[in-house]
Parts: sequence; C-alpha cells; structure tokens
Amino acid sequence: MKVRDLGEFGLIAMLDQIIRQSGAAYLKDDSHGIGIGEDAAAWGSRQPMQLGTTDMLVENVHFTLEGVNWRDLGWKSLAVNISDIAAMGGTPTCAMVSLGLPPDTEVGDIAELYRGMAEVAREFDMPVVGGDLTEAPVLIISPSVIGQTDQGKLMTRSGARSGDKIAVTGYLGASAAGLRVIRHKVDVDHEISSQLKLAHAKPHPRIKEGLKLVEAGARAAIDISDGLIADLSHICQASAVHARINSTDIPVYPAALAAFGNEALDMALCGGEDYELLVTAPKEVIEAARAHLGSVSLTVIGEVEKGLPGKVTLVDETGKEIEPEKGGWEHFGSRY
Amino acid sequence: MKVRDLGEFGLIAMLDQIIRQSGAAYLKDDSHGIGIGEDAAAWGSRQPMQLGTTDMLVENVHFTLEGVNWRDLGWKSLAVNISDIAAMGGTPTCAMVSLGLPPDTEVGDIAELYRGMAEVAREFDMPVVGGDLTEAPVLIISPSVIGQTDQGKLMTRSGARSGDKIAVTGYLGASAAGLRVIRHKVDVDHEISSQLKLAHAKPHPRIKEGLKLVEAGARAAIDISDGLIADLSHICQASAVHARINSTDIPVYPAALAAFGNEALDMALCGGEDYELLVTAPKEVIEAARAHLGSVSLTVIGEVEKGLPGKVTLVDETGKEIEPEKGGWEHFGSRY
Repeated sequence: MKVRDLGEFGLIAMLDQIIRQSGAAYLKDDSHGIGIGEDAAAWGSRQPMQLGTTDMLVENVHFTLEGVNWRDLGWKSLAVNISDIAAMGGTPTCAMVSLGLPPDTEVGDIAELYRGMAEVAREFDMPVVGGDLTEAPVLIISPSVIGQTDQGKLMTRSGARSGDKIAVTGYLGASAAGLRVIRHKVDVDHEISSQLKLAHAKPHPRIKEGLKLVEAGARAAIDISDGLIADLSHICQASAVHARINSTDIPVYPAALAAFGNEALDMALCGGEDYELLVTAPKEVIEAARAHLGSVSLTVIGEVEKGLPGKVTLVDETGKEIEPEKGGWEHFGSRY
Repeated sequence: MKVRDLGEFGLIAMLDQIIRQSGAAYLKDDSHGIGIGEDAAAWGSRQPMQLGTTDMLVENVHFTLEGVNWRDLGWKSLAVNISDIAAMGGTPTCAMVSLGLPPDTEVGDIAELYRGMAEVAREFDMPVVGGDLTEAPVLIISPSVIGQTDQGKLMTRSGARSGDKIAVTGYLGASAAGLRVIRHKVDVDHEISSQLKLAHAKPHPRIKEGLKLVEAGARAAIDISDGLIADLSHICQASAVHARINSTDIPVYPAALAAFGNEALDMALCGGEDYELLVTAPKEVIEAARAHLGSVSLTVIGEVEKGLPGKVTLVDETGKEIEPEKGGWEHFGSRY
C-alpha cells in the first residue's frame, strides 16, 4: 500500500500504534505526558510542564516561491508552530529551525526569511536557539517550538464534555479569502484586499488568549489550521463527543464578507489557516474568559452534545442540518 | 549571491547575526541559555536546564533509498540527534519527528522506519511524543530531540582551555569503513564487514559516557559527526585555542584497520559519523572519567595549546606535522 492510499490520518494512527507497541511511547515513571494526536506534545512531571510542536513546510506543497514575500513566509512558518502552543494554553519558550535549501537559493532571500522569523520570535519573546541547515531539492522549513504551561494547566483536543459551549476567538475566513485574492487577483477594494492578504500572510497566534482561556478553566481547544469544521471534528473525535454549530453564529471576517458575500461563510467553515482558537468549555468559563480578552471577541457558535461521537452537525437559522461545501485539508489525499 | 557560494558555515554566521541583531536571540530575564553554534541549544533558568537539537536528513543528500534498510535509517536518524545531547553531557527526554513523504512511498517502509526510531527511543528511554507528516518530493526526516542536563552541568564547544588533554571515546573510522564496504562491495572477511556495516548503520550515542565525563568535570565536547579533524576544528574555533594531536595515538577501529590497513587512519581522522565523543579536559578529569567508563575506552590523542586559534595540527611519531587527506563535510560545498 502507498502512503497516498492510506492518507495522513491513517498513517498517523499506524505510526502511533508502532510507537506504543514498541514501548517508545512510555513515559518515565516520574513523568506524565501527552503525545501524538494533540496540537503540541506535553511532558515533564515538574511544573511548568514542557510543550513541543513541529510543523514542516515544503515548497510546492504548502507554498510556492512564485512572487513569494520571504519575510512573510518566515513569519508564518514560525507563527503556525507558536499557534499550536497557544492551542494548549501555553507560552512559547524558544524555537529551533531546520532549513533544507537548494544550492542555487539566493542568500538574500534566506536572510529575509530569517528576518521574518526573527520578527515573530521577538514579538512572542521566544529566542531562536538553534537549528540545522542542509541541502535539499526544494525549500523545506522545519521549525520546532518549545513552550511551557502556566502552572500545569493545559487544553487538549480530548477535553470536550457534553454540555460545553463551543466558542471561537476573533473572526474566521480571512485567510482563505486572502489566498483567493492573492491567487486570482479578485477585483475588490484596496483596503479590503490588503486586510485579507495580510491575514493570510501574517497570522497572529493567540498566545495571550489561550492563556486567559486556560486560566478561566477551559480544558479543550485546538487552533484552526485545517478549517473550523475539520478542526472541530478533531476535537469531537478525540473527546468522543458530538458537536452542533449554528451557521448564523459563525463570526465571519467582515472584509471577507464584503469581498465575497455568501461564499465567505464557506471560507469561515472550511478555509483553514485562520489560527484562531476553537475552544469548548462550560458557559460560565467562556464568560469568565471573555471578560479578560480585551478587544478580541470570543463567540459562542454551538454546543457539545451527546450524539454520534466524532460528528459535527451544522444547522441553519431554522435548525435544519446543512452541509458545508467542503472539508479540511488532509495530506496525501485531496480536499474532501 | 547563491547559497552554494556562501556555504553552510557562512550561512549559519549570517543567520546567527540576523537573529542577534533583531533581538530574537535575547533570552528572557530569568533564563540563561546557549544558542546557535553548539551541538544542542540549552535554555531555562531552573535546574535541570533544557536541551534541544534538530538534524534534518534529506534523501539523495544524506542517504539514498537504493537498497536502504528502513529500520536502520530510522535508528540512525534519531541516534544522530541523541548524540548531540550526549555531546552536551545531557540525557534525552523525548523526541518529535517530522516526516516529508512522496505520496508513492510504501506504507510498509515507513512502518519499518518508525520501528527503527522506536527501537533507539526505547533503548534511551526517550518517548516519541509528536511530530508532523506532510507530502514532499523526496523523503525528509526531521527529528528534534529534547534533553536535559544533570544538575545544570554541561559541555560546550567553547569550553576548551590551553593545557587540556584531548581525548576520544571508543574507536574511530568504523563508520567510514562501513560505508566503503556497503558502497564498493570490498572483498573483506564476513565478520569484519558485518561489524563495519553495523557501525555505519546503527551508531550508538554515547549518552552514559557523556554523563560520566560531565560529572567528572569535563566542560568541552563535541560528537564526531563531520570527522575528527573537522569536529576538533569546531572546538578550537569556538574556544579560540589551538590543538595538537598525534597520529599514532588515534584509536583506529580494529576491523577498519584489518580491512583497509593504512587507509583506516584517514577514515578515523576525516571519515565522520562515528558519533564518539571528542572531549578536552585537564588530565586528572580525563583520568577520573575513564575510571567510570567501564569497557568503553577514553584515549588521549593530544592536547590543547596556545597557538593559532582555531587550528588543528596533526603530527606523526617523529613530531613532524602531517596533512590529513581530506577534511570534513560542509553542506552546499564539496568535501575539502
């Protein structure tokens, strides 16, 4: 069987099983940890717990170099890893960056890439402490971000409970709308198109918001990288719960709505890469957290219910079940 | 200017400068750390300090898939990262593994790769806690290994002092000899060729030995990945010292000597990938450490002197300076 036939999630399940069966998932007696299947791994018995995450970006898979802004690429490649730490309710400690470079890459472009990384690293007070450079046939950016929890409290994909409200920080659909503007040179207002392109190019990880959520008592979260529906499905599968969300409650990014009208809802539901936090928690926890989020909104979009475990149901204003146009991103397969 | 013109070390220096100038090398007030230019990064003000290292392996750059033993490839890809932790005198805590996979990769091969990783992970009591899977045009293996120090004591490349003895664990040249046997089907005794191939395929990181060395008081070390001369040069450059080593004192791997005679010395000096520890320390520290290394030898091969900083001098039994045949490995350039 080929990797393309098994698909990303099948492969992850297989590798997880190999690691567990071999005893290599075993954590030392004095440690407890969280491993494969979360936004970040967590380990260590002493407080704070350590967190770690890694996301590899590959040219022509995750990005192309045609018209690329190298500095933005540097920002985003670290930001998406920082976002995984935010989803656990942690803070980033430091980063390591491995780069695979074709020998004819321009040195000035790599300098710009690093300036973008340095920019987001400074923004989040997270030194870049090491890495590796090697030759490769295409550009490969493989950062690891290490973080830590605040007093051992953290959020996981498996922490959702029946009765929890489902909420999301900020607005959704901006990144997908920005990608559309970049790719198809859509005719929209300059100010709007700038906002959308920026949202796609330079996502801002929700570290502060994750901290406030975990402090308020939230115990289930994920960052929206694959798309709202897809990422909520990940929570539902890990927590063995059912989620019902209301299409009219989805906080669609205003500039995406202005540019794309009704299509913007699908961008918010399925577009991905918004790097907002999707969280489930009792109503009072959501309300307590909201009070500390300042200008960042925290919108309730549905609730966790008993029902078919792992399933996400989307309903319209009449309560009728509707199907989103498409789902999230799975590697080695196609958008489904 | 292209990456191939600047070379790996020029590029590292440039990226280091960008990070420092931007303030992204800044470590938080309550932390002290060691960053770019060491075998592993170190951070954290609390004891134990945290260590982190990452080494990316790229198909057709670091390995080819022709006749590859996937399980050995898995072992080695994690082992070389564990070895960087050993060089700091630390112990591995956990690993994350990012894989880039062509979609037509056989699932069974990736399972074998992971079994090899699980094997070395279990051997070193180091759980694999996470990672990332993505599509890529060639196989990319990008592991990160997190470790910790024993009570805050560690070894660095910059810790060498004039008067230190230079010593190496075990024997050198086995990996280069093994590679020669694998590539050129050299006609040597079966037992000897098996030993050499195994040494190349499944290096055994010197974690225990690194711990004993640091406990005995050693403060400068590196693991031999690029080659004895090249790696000793890294220490001399980082410590601004001169090293003199005696060719007759180099512990050449017996099976390499048996198979390749005089050529084995060059394999020991320049071959690389032996993953033994090269350490400098006062004579009494070396002797104290040796007493705790059991069956693993610790051979004094020279000493650190005042002299041209960064330079390594190799002398023969008469004290005459000799040139090794070739140096270590630099990416984007050629062997020099």
